[in-house]
Amino acid sequence: MMWVYVNGKFVPEAEATISVFDHGFLYGDGVYEAVRIYQGKPFLFDRHLARLRRSCDLIGLVHPVDDEAWWTILTEMVRRNCLSDAGIRLTISRGPGEIGIDPGLCHQPTVVVMAKVLSPYPTEMRERGVSLKVVSVRRNPLAAQSPHIKSLSFLNNILAKQEASQAGAFDALMLNMDGYVTECTTSNVFFVRHGQVYTPSAGCGILEGITREVIIELARTLGVSVKEGYYEVDAFLGADECFITNTGMEVMSVSRIDQNVIGTGKSGPLAHQLWKAFQDNLGRYLGPSLLETPR
Amino acid sequence: MMWVYVNGKFVPEAEATISVFDHGFLYGDGVYEAVRIYQGKPFLFDRHLARLRRSCDLIGLVHPVDDEAWWTILTEMVRRNCLSDAGIRLTISRGPGEIGIDPGLCHQPTVVVMAKVLSPYPTEMRERGVSLKVVSVRRNPLAAQSPHIKSLSFLNNILAKQEASQAGAFDALMLNMDGYVTECTTSNVFFVRHGQVYTPSAGCGILEGITREVIIELARTLGVSVKEGYYEVDAFLGADECFITNTGMEVMSVSRIDQNVIGTGKSGPLAHQLWKAFQDNLGRYLGPSLLETPR
Repeated sequence: MMWVYVNGKFVPEAEATISVFDHGFLYGDGVYEAVRIYQGKPFLFDRHLARLRRSCDLIGLVHPVDDEAWWTILTEMVRRNCLSDAGIRLTISRGPGEIGIDPGLCHQPTVVVMAKVLSPYPTEMRERGVSLKVVSVRRNPLAAQSPHIKSLSFLNNILAKQEASQAGAFDALMLNMDGYVTECTTSNVFFVRHGQVYTPSAGCGILEGITREVIIELARTLGVSVKEGYYEVDAFLGADECFITNTGMEVMSVSRIDQNVIGTGKSGPLAHQLWKAFQDNLGRYLGPSLLETPR
Repeated sequence: MMWVYVNGKFVPEAEATISVFDHGFLYGDGVYEAVRIYQGKPFLFDRHLARLRRSCDLIGLVHPVDDEAWWTILTEMVRRNCLSDAGIRLTISRGPGEIGIDPGLCHQPTVVVMAKVLSPYPTEMRERGVSLKVVSVRRNPLAAQSPHIKSLSFLNNILAKQEASQAGAFDALMLNMDGYVTECTTSNVFFVRHGQVYTPSAGCGILEGITREVIIELARTLGVSVKEGYYEVDAFLGADECFITNTGMEVMSVSRIDQNVIGTGKSGPLAHQLWKAFQDNLGRYLGPSLLETPR
């Protein structure tokens, strides 16, 4: 049984509920973050909190929890659920209010924290790489619903994911309205050409992933240049390697896009090197163990 | 106290809850409809059910309630709450499931029905007309998240509404990515020029409102031609009249867009005539009274 945090209390998951009048449910009006826990230690929690705060700002929601309180909630979450390797989701919604889309109808945001135990991805998948489908569903434009907001209104990505799944692909490669590659449904995407790494820039309309940021930093430390820009699908199809990043997968090779084999059709050497560097440097990104009793 | 229907049961509103794991809450994965009740009689309920079914189809959600069951739920909803004039919201979400955007993680959709008692709009507002702001937030494109889906992922419209409210406007006039007018945040928009009515077509990226449909039918019955097409803001600014329609407002004149006065700056004669026709013909659109005991 898992404990879930709901508005100040820890409750068993079966009792973790919100009002049906919550505007998070009625209108997708809210934001979230997913934080990785490694052996009881949070991965770059402060960066996640900063992004959560930015998402709140972008939808005009007053962030209802200060950083110290978030650390306290996270610590209790990890301890109560004895979480070693897990993903923890922090959700803030506009809260309950009368029917109507005006946020002014809601007076108290809802705060929910839940966890999911993670198992490592199969070695075979890591070695073989995954497949992507270039879907017809375009990524929401910055001018309509900015992908910089990690929001509860996630239907755009769900529609893309469904289209990819129906085609038997692992995930969807989403283009923006101008035809440039943006990201996958819950990960950022990179390609490698002649030893250089390329990834869509924020301006393409992506959520700038925290793992994306770390991989860019690590690549540069390794002396590998990383360019952020506007790239069409062809650039990915003609690449030597392609990979995706997110909090759960860290770095995952992409060996096929639609019917096209990328590079050797297996996990690429630079993707592997970056994943290795991620593992080797992980300690630098982790906070204190939340499982231990503080002195 | 209001009764709310949640997954097969009527419960008091304070006890009406859903799991925090509901993908309607976590990802805005679901759809809804708002049905108007006039003196206990539903307005075009079958058309709302048809649109709800279409929304479900568009997100690949198996519609979990048949029409007869919907009528039974609606009837009990109206009777338990003694609803005379009200709006009833039907919500279907993907249901509870593990964290992750894949709809396959959810095995049982959530069905929620709630009501809101409606009071008439102030006569002064109807006479004076309301103001719109042309907002910078663009309407989600058809290719990204089709406005034809009346979905729980409503952030696009919320952002637009906030921008309009901050400017002191009643609602937002939203353009599509090509700069053509689409709709307001929860209503369709029309303008009148030389006795002819114009409104953005479905292809602009709008939710085709049921009241919009009725007003088009009524206008044609009155011998007024209605053209659906692609219109820029200038066409609205230079119009003789402008009005918006939805289930709650029926027909509402727009007397100002940004700093521009539309027509005489008051409720226009054709808008008034259409609203009158709507009232006069209302009986044709209403189902049986749900307040009476059937024989």
